[in-house]
Amino acid sequence: MEKYRFHNHRLYHCLADRAFTMSGEDHHLRHLIRTNNRLTDFSAMGGGLFFDYSRQRIDAVTLALLFELADAAAVTDQFADMADGKKVNVTENRAALHMAARSFSEVPISVDGRNIKADLKSVRAQIGRFCESVHRGEITGGTDQAFRHVVVVGIGGSYLGTEFVAGALEAFADRGISLEFLSNVDIHNFGCIWSRIVPEQTLWIIISKSYTTAETMANEELIRRRMDAEGLNPSKHLVTVTSKGSPGDQDDGRGLAAFHMFDFIGGRYSVTSAVGGVPLGLYLGPERFERFLKGAEEMDKHAMEAAPTQNLPLLAALLAVWNTSFLGYSQTAIIPYASPLSKLVPHVQQLNMESNGKSVDAGGRMLDEPAGTVIFGEPGTNAQHSFFQLAHQGKAFPIDFIGVLNPQYQMNEGRFKGVGHQQELWANMLAQATALALGHESENPAKFFSGNRPSSVIVLENLEPEDVGRLLAFYEARTIYEAFIWGINPFDQFGVELGKETAGTIRSEMAAHNDNPDHDLKAVDPINRKYLQMLFSGKLSR
Amino acid sequence: MEKYRFHNHRLYHCLADRAFTMSGEDHHLRHLIRTNNRLTDFSAMGGGLFFDYSRQRIDAVTLALLFELADAAAVTDQFADMADGKKVNVTENRAALHMAARSFSEVPISVDGRNIKADLKSVRAQIGRFCESVHRGEITGGTDQAFRHVVVVGIGGSYLGTEFVAGALEAFADRGISLEFLSNVDIHNFGCIWSRIVPEQTLWIIISKSYTTAETMANEELIRRRMDAEGLNPSKHLVTVTSKGSPGDQDDGRGLAAFHMFDFIGGRYSVTSAVGGVPLGLYLGPERFERFLKGAEEMDKHAMEAAPTQNLPLLAALLAVWNTSFLGYSQTAIIPYASPLSKLVPHVQQLNMESNGKSVDAGGRMLDEPAGTVIFGEPGTNAQHSFFQLAHQGKAFPIDFIGVLNPQYQMNEGRFKGVGHQQELWANMLAQATALALGHESENPAKFFSGNRPSSVIVLENLEPEDVGRLLAFYEARTIYEAFIWGINPFDQFGVELGKETAGTIRSEMAAHNDNPDHDLKAVDPINRKYLQMLFSGKLSR
Repeated sequence: MEKYRFHNHRLYHCLADRAFTMSGEDHHLRHLIRTNNRLTDFSAMGGGLFFDYSRQRIDAVTLALLFELADAAAVTDQFADMADGKKVNVTENRAALHMAARSFSEVPISVDGRNIKADLKSVRAQIGRFCESVHRGEITGGTDQAFRHVVVVGIGGSYLGTEFVAGALEAFADRGISLEFLSNVDIHNFGCIWSRIVPEQTLWIIISKSYTTAETMANEELIRRRMDAEGLNPSKHLVTVTSKGSPGDQDDGRGLAAFHMFDFIGGRYSVTSAVGGVPLGLYLGPERFERFLKGAEEMDKHAMEAAPTQNLPLLAALLAVWNTSFLGYSQTAIIPYASPLSKLVPHVQQLNMESNGKSVDAGGRMLDEPAGTVIFGEPGTNAQHSFFQLAHQGKAFPIDFIGVLNPQYQMNEGRFKGVGHQQELWANMLAQATALALGHESENPAKFFSGNRPSSVIVLENLEPEDVGRLLAFYEARTIYEAFIWGINPFDQFGVELGKETAGTIRSEMAAHNDNPDHDLKAVDPINRKYLQMLFSGKLSR
Repeated sequence: MEKYRFHNHRLYHCLADRAFTMSGEDHHLRHLIRTNNRLTDFSAMGGGLFFDYSRQRIDAVTLALLFELADAAAVTDQFADMADGKKVNVTENRAALHMAARSFSEVPISVDGRNIKADLKSVRAQIGRFCESVHRGEITGGTDQAFRHVVVVGIGGSYLGTEFVAGALEAFADRGISLEFLSNVDIHNFGCIWSRIVPEQTLWIIISKSYTTAETMANEELIRRRMDAEGLNPSKHLVTVTSKGSPGDQDDGRGLAAFHMFDFIGGRYSVTSAVGGVPLGLYLGPERFERFLKGAEEMDKHAMEAAPTQNLPLLAALLAVWNTSFLGYSQTAIIPYASPLSKLVPHVQQLNMESNGKSVDAGGRMLDEPAGTVIFGEPGTNAQHSFFQLAHQGKAFPIDFIGVLNPQYQMNEGRFKGVGHQQELWANMLAQATALALGHESENPAKFFSGNRPSSVIVLENLEPEDVGRLLAFYEARTIYEAFIWGINPFDQFGVELGKETAGTIRSEMAAHNDNPDHDLKAVDPINRKYLQMLFSGKLSR
């Protein structure tokens, strides 16, 4: 298939023209949202979610052009290729099969002649058995005490998705196990976690595909040293999630178990694999983890099978590209009006920005302008009392509002001003979307609201494990559809390499100094040399 | 003083020309940072912090123009007017005297003929006495149990600053008191906190200047109801921080105490007032809160007295304006390489975006383009494994890196690859700033790094209470200097009003429905009506 080149196609010009038209006063959202059936015509339901884009700056003509764009980019074919195990991660010659990790169908998927569905199923079964044995107290630490604390040791994609799901489903964590995340090499992180756990009752899950991630390896070393110092055998308190054959794939007794991850699932897409499965299975129980997977599978099927006009992730992706590349917005906020979803934001921040923050297309050609957008956000209503001043009267940015119809925490909350807490929360979410769109005229410029500020609303019926799976898979599919429309590869991340290399040089100079305080530090530039001197002395100086 | 108008001055054109020049290949950061004495010439130290802007896209000529800009805007005079109690918040006819809250000098400041320094001192003394009585167990709850849990009930500026400082200084919290934040009206927040506290041992601090904030009032009502249901007298478990004469300024026995806040200190600038003083005094001890204030005072003096070329907050403000209005960056990331500072980001996000996300100047005229910028961030190295792909290869944005020379958590951490955890952290921070600036040539476009991506580095010697005060005051002064350069009023926030009004309409309809399920919901538009129907039914539908 000859891939569509977003940046040199006639459609680009049609859409750019359309963006100009849509910026006219007669296409202000104030007018658009008052047309008949606006919500019916600009919303969709599927995969267990409701998606309302009636307050986005589009109309039927624009939408038709966007579907043409999707069609020209053959996004449906690309998505199907991905699902089938084709090597869509072209720069690394890998498949991208995160959806296979939560597929409960028996249809095999072959990669290099191997049915990887069988491999994934076998790891899932291994995780289920392990979690149940821990819960029954059959697998314990070195002093035969049951595990009460689980610490995920991993960074980036090795923990952000799991942190999101664990936070969203904390209400279901009934196994008497606390879950902590040791991601950073910052010694403070280790110190805080160490002060909260009982080492005898702690299971460390070391997660690294290559088992060479600098932060994770430094933390693993520190954990082994500290457990040793407590008179505990670290190998009785540690499991690994890593690639087959990596230095962490231990059958040498250096850990209780090793669970495999695969090169066809990237870190930021890995929460439904063993990366999420081991910690979430322990924290929530494997049966709830399975319910979560089934929600994700439901959205995957929707993302693959729904017609473009009804396809939630594809619609959201088209709107993201429209907003970024045509209307010129530089960032998107995600504002969940549901506190359990607060860690969705850092997860999608990684998922989307690491996938799509690219300057080159999948064929290796430079893009006219970089793809991707900055994602940030805080839960509502908190965000209203923080940065929404700028959202209403500063430079505009599109917003995803997320609402949950039925909260997890059901209590007789009483009423204040005639409404309950959950209703008050919804009144605010709806009011923000409305006010941003409509704006408000005023003689006083300080009280003038220009409006025309776009937003979508995503609604979940509940916040059960399935719902969280649906939301996760929605943002994954949306990110991938965005990439396919932009013509980029969302599965590599070469942009993180240069910093790692540079850190290696600086680290070597530090190590040389640690060995010999007279070392000249000449391998680093004068600015960094000055910093190393400050760091060694522990004193500020110019 | 006739105020300088940023948007129609000849300097604007000089700087715009300069931005064009600085965008040429010969002014790439790769060249700039290799000039002699780059760090010495483009760094400053003062107020207890070190500030390095050598990796910003400026040179001596640009910097001179920026100082002209500051001079033309009379920022030093404006700052002095603010410090003296002049009504610099012109739209609300109020002074802006957050600096007075941490001034330990005896010099009076008069507002409307009253020495407000005396008022502030008296509140500070009241807080000190109250905290000590609680710590000594003299003030207890209704069943004579000592207070072990303190819950701040407040939203936006009533908690974000306190949350930042409490997180940064958690290592010093030795009073046996836990600190929680109930900000959101989301019932989940109340539920989580309620499950973690022991009601008999809990002190609720209700913080609202007007004592009408919707979320805070709904939560106060719920707290009173739940405490009652536990057979506890809420008034024995509650203090307020509010304006004199507000509905929460209780001398009617409905609370243990009321601490006053003043209309000359805005919410987002209030952490050094009673808003931070009561919870932080209880959590850390009043003497540590005083050390924190003294650090802030040190930075205030620096911000007021240092020459522009050595003035950290002013330099940082000039660079922010340069980056936003001339180089065209749309967001700034703050990346603290010190996990205790992780809540600095949401605090500064509010402080800066709510202050400067404006479309009108202080005189009420529309700006050519809105001021302010989006602030976001996560701690390093976590951020490197999250969104730094986009930082290196997507659309560029300026970054504030923050480093601490001596970590709070000092342990024998051992070495990995020849360095300790703290050194590894610094190697990464320096490497990121370096790699972003330099970039890297490659034949392979996927591995090409354009570089020229600006950043600053802020260094703290330690993370003691004084250091946190300095950092807080640095970002406050910087935000205000930015506003003075842009010619806007950083102390009002009319942009949050429209959403509140709209929420009122929707809330009324909900309340009417609660009273009468047949209510027609005609007061809201068809889109919101559909949402109300969904919410009442608890089911997704189109």
